[in-house]
Amino acid sequence: MPEPHFVLTLSCPNRPGIVAAVATLIFEQGGNILEAQQYDDQATGQFFMRVVFNPAAAPPGGPLTPEALRAALGPLAERFRMHWTLRDAGVPRRVLILASRPDHCLRDLLYRHSSGELPMQVTAVVSNHPRDIYPNLPLGDIPFHHLPVTRETKMEQEAALWELIRSTDTELVVLARYMQVLSEGLSAKLRGRCINIHHSFLPGFKGAKPYHQAHDRGVKLIGATAHYVTGDLDEGPIIEQDVERITHADTAEDLVRKGRDIERRVLARAVAWHLQDRLLLNGRKTVVFA
Amino acid sequence: MPEPHFVLTLSCPNRPGIVAAVATLIFEQGGNILEAQQYDDQATGQFFMRVVFNPAAAPPGGPLTPEALRAALGPLAERFRMHWTLRDAGVPRRVLILASRPDHCLRDLLYRHSSGELPMQVTAVVSNHPRDIYPNLPLGDIPFHHLPVTRETKMEQEAALWELIRSTDTELVVLARYMQVLSEGLSAKLRGRCINIHHSFLPGFKGAKPYHQAHDRGVKLIGATAHYVTGDLDEGPIIEQDVERITHADTAEDLVRKGRDIERRVLARAVAWHLQDRLLLNGRKTVVFA
Amino acid sequence: MPEPHFVLTLSCPNRPGIVAAVATLIFEQGGNILEAQQYDDQATGQFFMRVVFNPAAAPPGGPLTPEALRAALGPLAERFRMHWTLRDAGVPRRVLILASRPDHCLRDLLYRHSSGELPMQVTAVVSNHPRDIYPNLPLGDIPFHHLPVTRETKMEQEAALWELIRSTDTELVVLARYMQVLSEGLSAKLRGRCINIHHSFLPGFKGAKPYHQAHDRGVKLIGATAHYVTGDLDEGPIIEQDVERITHADTAEDLVRKGRDIERRVLARAVAWHLQDRLLLNGRKTVVFA
Amino acid sequence: MPEPHFVLTLSCPNRPGIVAAVATLIFEQGGNILEAQQYDDQATGQFFMRVVFNPAAAPPGGPLTPEALRAALGPLAERFRMHWTLRDAGVPRRVLILASRPDHCLRDLLYRHSSGELPMQVTAVVSNHPRDIYPNLPLGDIPFHHLPVTRETKMEQEAALWELIRSTDTELVVLARYMQVLSEGLSAKLRGRCINIHHSFLPGFKGAKPYHQAHDRGVKLIGATAHYVTGDLDEGPIIEQDVERITHADTAEDLVRKGRDIERRVLARAVAWHLQDRLLLNGRKTVVFA
Repeated sequence: MPEPHFVLTLSCPNRPGIVAAVATLIFEQGGNILEAQQYDDQATGQFFMRVVFNPAAAPPGGPLTPEALRAALGPLAERFRMHWTLRDAGVPRRVLILASRPDHCLRDLLYRHSSGELPMQVTAVVSNHPRDIYPNLPLGDIPFHHLPVTRETKMEQEAALWELIRSTDTELVVLARYMQVLSEGLSAKLRGRCINIHHSFLPGFKGAKPYHQAHDRGVKLIGATAHYVTGDLDEGPIIEQDVERITHADTAEDLVRKGRDIERRVLARAVAWHLQDRLLLNGRKTVVFA
Repeated sequence: MPEPHFVLTLSCPNRPGIVAAVATLIFEQGGNILEAQQYDDQATGQFFMRVVFNPAAAPPGGPLTPEALRAALGPLAERFRMHWTLRDAGVPRRVLILASRPDHCLRDLLYRHSSGELPMQVTAVVSNHPRDIYPNLPLGDIPFHHLPVTRETKMEQEAALWELIRSTDTELVVLARYMQVLSEGLSAKLRGRCINIHHSFLPGFKGAKPYHQAHDRGVKLIGATAHYVTGDLDEGPIIEQDVERITHADTAEDLVRKGRDIERRVLARAVAWHLQDRLLLNGRKTVVFA
Repeated sequence: MPEPHFVLTLSCPNRPGIVAAVATLIFEQGGNILEAQQYDDQATGQFFMRVVFNPAAAPPGGPLTPEALRAALGPLAERFRMHWTLRDAGVPRRVLILASRPDHCLRDLLYRHSSGELPMQVTAVVSNHPRDIYPNLPLGDIPFHHLPVTRETKMEQEAALWELIRSTDTELVVLARYMQVLSEGLSAKLRGRCINIHHSFLPGFKGAKPYHQAHDRGVKLIGATAHYVTGDLDEGPIIEQDVERITHADTAEDLVRKGRDIERRVLARAVAWHLQDRLLLNGRKTVVFA
Repeated sequence: MPEPHFVLTLSCPNRPGIVAAVATLIFEQGGNILEAQQYDDQATGQFFMRVVFNPAAAPPGGPLTPEALRAALGPLAERFRMHWTLRDAGVPRRVLILASRPDHCLRDLLYRHSSGELPMQVTAVVSNHPRDIYPNLPLGDIPFHHLPVTRETKMEQEAALWELIRSTDTELVVLARYMQVLSEGLSAKLRGRCINIHHSFLPGFKGAKPYHQAHDRGVKLIGATAHYVTGDLDEGPIIEQDVERITHADTAEDLVRKGRDIERRVLARAVAWHLQDRLLLNGRKTVVFA
């Protein structure tokens, strides 16, 4: 993608002329469309679109400015009853990572961040465990916050967490194997901008030690699911899923280890897509412009 | 694999010396080991082995004969408390296919059979629906039997089915989307030699129209599971599982169609492995020497 | 996709406003855009687009008709110097299949055709070998033509082939392991509508028996490439490539067999994309809106 | 795998009785076979085997000792003309990594090492570039050596390198995108214990900037090959190959970036297999007991 460029995402009730109206507006504002994806949900009549564009070389109406573009989008959005976002792809999103004792997802996100694969600014790493259980964690300049939690102090801990999210202008919260369930209230505040990862199996297993249950059942695949957090535990809109092959020779411990691999891979993919504005909410589901 | 060759499979409580004893016996009987796979289940102490061998060129003790080999295996099996099978790989297994209205798995098995991919002899195709609902079914010389069934006639239908299995010397029964549940009694008779296929999802869905439920939930993967039939519906030892990617753009009908693809692929793989003696039962699980 | 629907493909020098102009025209002609894909080749400044649309429910300017649409596209195409095609997706393309002795690709295409996977009408199957070397070929109503060829009769054979292509209104020619090289003249006539398949290796191998050479070299992957035919043998624009894993245990014959699998899979994918107007030529390369 | 355990690898001319002899020897020496893989090369008559075993609980002939085992293997190896190695899987291999300016493979190996994925002891990181071109390289205690090289000083540099390999008891040398060709002499000294990685394409491309050539040609796959180093540049026995999908939308720079991903993945896999004694040389080819 040539720099600079912008990403517009939108959803609205479907009707003819949306693409024409949006493309015409971008053209008139001095933009040059690089990429566009769209989706009509025939079942609900909802329309979804993602457009990437850069400033045109010599636009007839003068150079593109984000401010003028936003101003022009207002009336259009009203006419089509659109939800929309417009972002400068060059400004990295501000991301807070929450972790607990298992740190494979946390370390993986930090590694991909440092290698340039995840264009984000990490505002904080927060754990309900103290800093010293993570030896050699390559934090660099990223602040680490220890926010312990018990059943009795959960409200206070979540208040502190929320204050941290607010004060750091955090745009996305990633639950990197954070072993606490967020309350309904905090989940609601973070709707559409909090991503969680958990294991998935065919068939599913309830209760503790799911990898050990899967091993007892002799499954040949184990999986992981990344989803947006809602009040409903592990039931929010699914972003991405993937699986890993298991054989009879894998022990329950092997399953746990392979599960870690697949968890970090799926989480990283979901976070990357969010950072690139490729995810749009569609009720209980997601539209993924991958 | 050079022709002719033989496949020995065995399982027994693990103890040192099994491999040595089996390999020595095959050597003394005039066999030349081409391939051997084994597995120690550390949790249960059970040992599993599959050995492929052909007649050695000029064995010291005279040429290999299956009869002498079987006779020699008897005392060894007793000493190690082995379950074992010995098969001439050149003799195709006798297979009966059961189907209902959805015929994608049936047609796929017949196609792979005709293309030489599945070395089997199909003893019969049986359906609870009449022949004429399957236009252009390339049966060739394979007999087709219509065995209709109602709740009231289930016992009689299964008796007729069992008689057909017996009279045709059928070794393997494949439920190619047969939409009837086999009774506990028939399932028991077919233990370890009846393969079923069904869909699988992460998370799982109960009740009717599972693909539509999966679509409503916005899953990104759908899957299928092939397993041996036991009295427990859809709960027998898993042989193989696989998944297919789904996107937001897939309708419920697309899921059904992709589900058919993955069902036939997974079923074909499971049947091929059974035909090649690559599957050993390990309690509720399978060992797959793929 | 709801029926009926239309597919417009186009390419032209890139400049701002193309998407706006095309989307506006479709809207004004009574169309409702279902899907759109586009690509800017930054290196050459060429722009490519594929739009799928159906008739809008109650368009302001009256119902969509293909004729009016074509008429309206004319001036637009001239203004932007576009190459374009417009097709009714409900009218299957007319396809002629050319084969030689190895018939795995031919049989695979016929099978996928009969299962509804390839929406085409097969105008003829042509071989340089007689009909009776293909036992049980499920041709149904499809005419079979035997057009033998020698070095001396090549010009006459190609003339007969071209006459057949013309008289049957064939739109696409598929070389399904046709072991003859088309002449430069015939290749030129079939530019952009003749697909070939051949094996590919890393590293590449020249000369006869490439699978045996690959086996000697101990490769761990073998592949196949589908491409449009040009006068340049095996060097036309690449449409699709894929590979299959090889292990030390695979014999040269196994490579040949696995090669057949991958060849038919890659060819079927390329043909399907062509039938769905997903392939646009970009000089020596293709744009694939998959 | 239960600890401790041992890995025996061997190759010899094939003849009946090898498996029996090896398994019997391990049994008599107090070993319990956990896993065994073998391969008959029918074309060359060579036999290859890898056996993993641990000390049996209460062996009749007394406990297993590596010394007694080695002593017993001597006469057996002589009888069957075997090449063999016996290793205690608990003792990590000593590995030296060679790098140049592109450091993606070097960083990846260090990361996988620190995460426990590669059970090795890194004896040194050597580069023909100075330490300060690798900011934030997480070397920990690993010594870094700068061994610059010019055409004139190549002999001296390789002598210094060889002295370093010797004095550190290095068992495996990994060329992690080391952009210098090893001389024939050094390659010969490192036969079977020096792994290189390079890109691979279908079709192949000669000369400089291969990713740019592949982009011009419009390939849909790019790949990488890991191989043992011989005097023959990029022509040693292939260990592993893999590919990555490319689309028309990928620029030449995208190909370079995706190439880096696939190079590090393939190299890591090859190194892991070597560390686990899964690789046996078979002339110009490898046997991979993966």
